[in-house]
Amino acid sequence: MGDTTVIPFFVQLDLITGKLSSFSERVVRRLSDLRGLVADEVALRRELEHGDRIVYEVFKINVPPIQGHLFFNVTVIHPGKIGEEYHFTKGHYHMNEQAAEIYIGVQGKGLLLMRSYNNFRVIEMQRGVLAYIPPGWGHRSVNVSHDPFVFLSIYPADAGYDYERIMREGMGKRVFATSNGQGYCIVDD
Amino acid sequence: MGDTTVIPFFVQLDLITGKLSSFSERVVRRLSDLRGLVADEVALRRELEHGDRIVYEVFKINVPPIQGHLFFNVTVIHPGKIGEEYHFTKGHYHMNEQAAEIYIGVQGKGLLLMRSYNNFRVIEMQRGVLAYIPPGWGHRSVNVSHDPFVFLSIYPADAGYDYERIMREGMGKRVFATSNGQGYCIVDD
Repeated sequence: MGDTTVIPFFVQLDLITGKLSSFSERVVRRLSDLRGLVADEVALRRELEHGDRIVYEVFKINVPPIQGHLFFNVTVIHPGKIGEEYHFTKGHYHMNEQAAEIYIGVQGKGLLLMRSYNNFRVIEMQRGVLAYIPPGWGHRSVNVSHDPFVFLSIYPADAGYDYERIMREGMGKRVFATSNGQGYCIVDD
Repeated sequence: MGDTTVIPFFVQLDLITGKLSSFSERVVRRLSDLRGLVADEVALRRELEHGDRIVYEVFKINVPPIQGHLFFNVTVIHPGKIGEEYHFTKGHYHMNEQAAEIYIGVQGKGLLLMRSYNNFRVIEMQRGVLAYIPPGWGHRSVNVSHDPFVFLSIYPADAGYDYERIMREGMGKRVFATSNGQGYCIVDD
């Protein structure tokens, strides 16, 4: 792991747009990263013919990935649909089943889907909503608006990411646009 | 500890004022709580003759105080001075020397003083400044403005608080008003 000494630092977070003044890493997830996760794989292949667009981006600040440290990221989910399904993040459980997470909505409107076995919860996220994801709950975010949905997340740096379980079990819920495109429907999966 | 099961929840955080829609506990610290911590104890006694005013308040949301959970608080430091020393929090180290902390400035202007042995750091806090307090650094906040200074803090729920060490060793720095009351001076203590 190398040197894990960190000295105090700061970044500027624009509380209107969610933009960070600096970051260590930008993770980009594209349409093709959602293969095996979308409701309509045919629609996904059709969309891919027009290019592999960015669905969401995560701006990360590096601290040591060890107990007691805290990771914080800004996630931007761009507006859009795959078929009628709103853009969403891959979603994950924490490898460390003790690790909680805090989300703070900064811009736009989204849904936070959570699952723990056969328990499901949905929190509507918007500016200033501070959501608590308890340990053991898988979580995925969905942009249900026509603007970017931006949120800050903070979690123990030793949380780890289990994407496989979502691949295998799903989130149990999917979010589709209403036929007029002005709302959303939450549907059991 | 009783039941430590938490289900997902949210609160609304006003990103302009820092006001929380609900909280579990409000901790109030008054002038008298700063006995033994101020530069000028005579000035403190003189101020106390006019009443034991509130210096700062902490709005807390309860989650289990165990590893993996995250505490989050909003702190409001009211403007004011004790003698020429700006209002400040008692300050503490974490009992758990591995536990970091994140501050996000929401309203007003303050200083975040940090100390690790003979290393000292100061970060000027204002709206949107996201500061990282690494494990092992004692921390105290100071309101250097004429308005409330409000910030959000997030930290591991098993961090614990060591106030005694600050009592014993001090923060190493003090913050006084300039003679015209429009600025601040940071002085070695």
